[in-house]
Amino acid sequence: MGSGIARNLIGAGHELTLYNRDSIKAHALAMAKPAVVAITPAHAVEHCEAVFTMLSDDAAVKEVVLGDYGIAEGLPAGAAHISISTISVATAKLLAEEHACRNQQYISAPVFGRPDAAENGKLLVVTAGPAAVIEKFRPIFGVIGRHTYSAGEQPWQANLIKLCGNFMIASMMETFGETFATMRKAGVDHHLFHEIISELFASPIYKGYGAAIANETFEPAGFALKLGLKDVRLALEAAFDVESPMPFASLLRDHFTSAMAHGQDQLDWSSVAMVPARMAGLAPKSDHK
Amino acid sequence: MGSGIARNLIGAGHELTLYNRDSIKAHALAMAKPAVVAITPAHAVEHCEAVFTMLSDDAAVKEVVLGDYGIAEGLPAGAAHISISTISVATAKLLAEEHACRNQQYISAPVFGRPDAAENGKLLVVTAGPAAVIEKFRPIFGVIGRHTYSAGEQPWQANLIKLCGNFMIASMMETFGETFATMRKAGVDHHLFHEIISELFASPIYKGYGAAIANETFEPAGFALKLGLKDVRLALEAAFDVESPMPFASLLRDHFTSAMAHGQDQLDWSSVAMVPARMAGLAPKSDHK
Amino acid sequence: MGSGIARNLIGAGHELTLYNRDSIKAHALAMAKPAVVAITPAHAVEHCEAVFTMLSDDAAVKEVVLGDYGIAEGLPAGAAHISISTISVATAKLLAEEHACRNQQYISAPVFGRPDAAENGKLLVVTAGPAAVIEKFRPIFGVIGRHTYSAGEQPWQANLIKLCGNFMIASMMETFGETFATMRKAGVDHHLFHEIISELFASPIYKGYGAAIANETFEPAGFALKLGLKDVRLALEAAFDVESPMPFASLLRDHFTSAMAHGQDQLDWSSVAMVPARMAGLAPKSDHK
Amino acid sequence: MGSGIARNLIGAGHELTLYNRDSIKAHALAMAKPAVVAITPAHAVEHCEAVFTMLSDDAAVKEVVLGDYGIAEGLPAGAAHISISTISVATAKLLAEEHACRNQQYISAPVFGRPDAAENGKLLVVTAGPAAVIEKFRPIFGVIGRHTYSAGEQPWQANLIKLCGNFMIASMMETFGETFATMRKAGVDHHLFHEIISELFASPIYKGYGAAIANETFEPAGFALKLGLKDVRLALEAAFDVESPMPFASLLRDHFTSAMAHGQDQLDWSSVAMVPARMAGLAPKSDHK
Repeated sequence: MGSGIARNLIGAGHELTLYNRDSIKAHALAMAKPAVVAITPAHAVEHCEAVFTMLSDDAAVKEVVLGDYGIAEGLPAGAAHISISTISVATAKLLAEEHACRNQQYISAPVFGRPDAAENGKLLVVTAGPAAVIEKFRPIFGVIGRHTYSAGEQPWQANLIKLCGNFMIASMMETFGETFATMRKAGVDHHLFHEIISELFASPIYKGYGAAIANETFEPAGFALKLGLKDVRLALEAAFDVESPMPFASLLRDHFTSAMAHGQDQLDWSSVAMVPARMAGLAPKSDHK
Repeated sequence: MGSGIARNLIGAGHELTLYNRDSIKAHALAMAKPAVVAITPAHAVEHCEAVFTMLSDDAAVKEVVLGDYGIAEGLPAGAAHISISTISVATAKLLAEEHACRNQQYISAPVFGRPDAAENGKLLVVTAGPAAVIEKFRPIFGVIGRHTYSAGEQPWQANLIKLCGNFMIASMMETFGETFATMRKAGVDHHLFHEIISELFASPIYKGYGAAIANETFEPAGFALKLGLKDVRLALEAAFDVESPMPFASLLRDHFTSAMAHGQDQLDWSSVAMVPARMAGLAPKSDHK
Repeated sequence: MGSGIARNLIGAGHELTLYNRDSIKAHALAMAKPAVVAITPAHAVEHCEAVFTMLSDDAAVKEVVLGDYGIAEGLPAGAAHISISTISVATAKLLAEEHACRNQQYISAPVFGRPDAAENGKLLVVTAGPAAVIEKFRPIFGVIGRHTYSAGEQPWQANLIKLCGNFMIASMMETFGETFATMRKAGVDHHLFHEIISELFASPIYKGYGAAIANETFEPAGFALKLGLKDVRLALEAAFDVESPMPFASLLRDHFTSAMAHGQDQLDWSSVAMVPARMAGLAPKSDHK
Repeated sequence: MGSGIARNLIGAGHELTLYNRDSIKAHALAMAKPAVVAITPAHAVEHCEAVFTMLSDDAAVKEVVLGDYGIAEGLPAGAAHISISTISVATAKLLAEEHACRNQQYISAPVFGRPDAAENGKLLVVTAGPAAVIEKFRPIFGVIGRHTYSAGEQPWQANLIKLCGNFMIASMMETFGETFATMRKAGVDHHLFHEIISELFASPIYKGYGAAIANETFEPAGFALKLGLKDVRLALEAAFDVESPMPFASLLRDHFTSAMAHGQDQLDWSSVAMVPARMAGLAPKSDHK
């Protein structure tokens, strides 16, 4: 995701300094496009107006921002950290506080969309944070996405929206898993069912994920199952903190956990649909390996 | 739904004889359009090539088809009963047998779409039954719907698809209920969340039902909650018969039951989303009445 | 169960006429004890004061009571049918009506206890029906059980209690299944856990079923899994009829269904505990066969 | 709980130094019995052979043990910290490491039993840690409990057993909640049902908690609902870490969360049974306040 976004920003004429925890990736990108590679996060940000972070989980973000030679150390006063990663509400609150202490700006701007949407600048960008800061960087959001939303003055508000959105996608996957299992056992063509449902919902998301699940095409992973599980858990944590039960999310958490127990951590998250299939006594393709 | 379909068939030049359990409705439709009203189902079908039934549940279908002066009594040998109602797999199997005994044809042809889609001939028609019979009536399906699918030689196959489709819609409603409750308690604008999700899924179904749930506009009911509950139960029964667990469907059954216990039987089925709201301690509008 | 009860009644000096759908069993019992074997249910009851039925499910009870040459045909006016079987609330209501039409008495008297408790007259007998009839037969209940409870004037009230009781036992099994799976994966001795839990609850039911589950000793079945599933479904149906959601029962229904899909129908119902084990990626002993 | 345990230890002739975060409580106990009160945890333990901690949650334990002037600072090398609190597996692992660094011993010894069992030395003590250390203090465990179990060499093993045990008790509460709601709506005496179930399981735990739930006697709390929720969450976390789904526990977490949202945090944890009652449209007593 990150490299697609970076390419779009460079393409729009912005000067980028790159940092990747795996430095090879940063170099590869830099060679293809005129960009500078930094040795540490602190070096990367020392003269910038804004730094974007796109990392896999809360721990990575905390390390890169608050660790030694981290962003918080190097970022000039007044400059902004724009966090695109899907992280927890709690970490977003922590980052907001830490940056405020240093007179730095912080915005959460998680995105919806698969890697190809990132490549094509077609992401949905959900921002939250001080309105003036969001306005300042609105043109940049326009480069990476097709829509920019403002969810409020508190950065974590955007993160909650992102987590709940991912929960809704994961729920859809489970419903495909349950109905496909029933179709297959009953003797109804589940591919036809998928075709009908795609027409009914008229949604590319139903069409795309439904096809992957119908065909059990879970590799290569667009989004790894272990990251999907992380997001369902973070949604549940955020809901828990405001005393809101989410029974579907709890069930999903169990099914994602079962998927982990069956070695699916690196498969696409849509493979959670294999769990109801196994419960119905159907052996998924990958169990034959 | 039935009157919209009937109007389209009349409009396409077909001769219709109408029968409604509430005869006033049949007369009202007949006055507006040139059609005949019959006193009993048996009379309605005695000279026809095909009879369409559109009724609220299994019991109504059984009474109208197999009861005294029912369709099975009057339908000529060789003519076809085309059942558009959302009924159980078990009842579809029963009807297929009963009609076969009498040398009558039977097709299941349940439809997806709200009343306005019926009015405009934009339904999705899922047929199943003998291929020759489906082919014969394909032009008629083209009048009432924008797509006709053939799910197989066994009529119940279409019913299973319809029930599982409704389960998927109901699941979507629950996910709106859970996320909206969390948003409202956390202090995030759930209308904005709905806007983002509608863009993300790009689905009119997400947009329409999500708006109804966000605004708690559950009257007038497009589809009554008690009928939605019926469909979830029938999906579960069909899945049970092939030993396929459907945990989301089970949870939905509980939530629809809770909605019934709170007097929501005549509200729109999307009001099932009020159940997670109540669990989170939020009082829905209608609880203030 | 039935033969244990019969032996106790004969032992207490009652004259019995036996009928079993599998006539060999009735003969075997009759040879061991002075009792008469009848050819049909109607013959069995034609001179009796009371008939006890102990059958596996609703269909069997309906056939034996209301079928040709059934109990309802032969039972003298004023005599009583005492149904010990675990049947649905709906069937209990039907039987009460059918017997009332014929001036026959009907009592539900389902029992709690395993076959050895039946053999030793240690069952718990839950009766419901007209108080005078229950009083009349109280001495007989005293022969087959260690406690007799009266749940009310409506026979179905006893059936609801029995179904809910079995739901509670099944829930306990699931909790063993979930905790044992966690213990085994974490590396804690689940046999020790069972020992502690048995001491904590101080319940022979926890001790007995817990040991069976810990050792995966599911054969021979004290009570077949498919009958346990039947009871959970009947409890859910009864709860549904009064609009009371039972989320644990719904989950159990799914897990029992998954167990059926894995061929466990004839194993003891405590083998439902294998479902969470499989979800956790643990292969139960029987899956190695 | 702590004071009951302390009184028993003093009664058995042990010399105690007391520390309570609320110092008044420590003084009150010290006045009644010959014991010393310390100003800080570090002071309390500076000359001891062993220190017992009994605190409400992980945060409290971490603060008292690892905070400034905490136990870890004052405890002599070779002396032992015996943690009786119900804490997470993760915190138990942390404490074991921290004490090991300081050449201190650490044992987990959580207990099962209500405050009156603590008072009477009738607790069940589940220990885990180095066998030699457990053996050394076995006489002391004999003073506070009626049984001492050894769950293994790793202290966290005892904590997992305690958490899973509490999950089983909480599950039982839910089953009472679901069945009582159904009984009440159907018109069956739920007090009678409780009596029968108590006899069936023959368990004081079913009898005691069932009575509290039947009568809705949730104050004063023997164990606060918010602590019960904490334990269910810790059980789920521990299970998650070994990739073991616990669907009943997930559902309980949702119901405890719903109870929190309805202001039940300080009621007894058995009041979780009010959640299914509310779902069934029954207003609990306390909702009328």
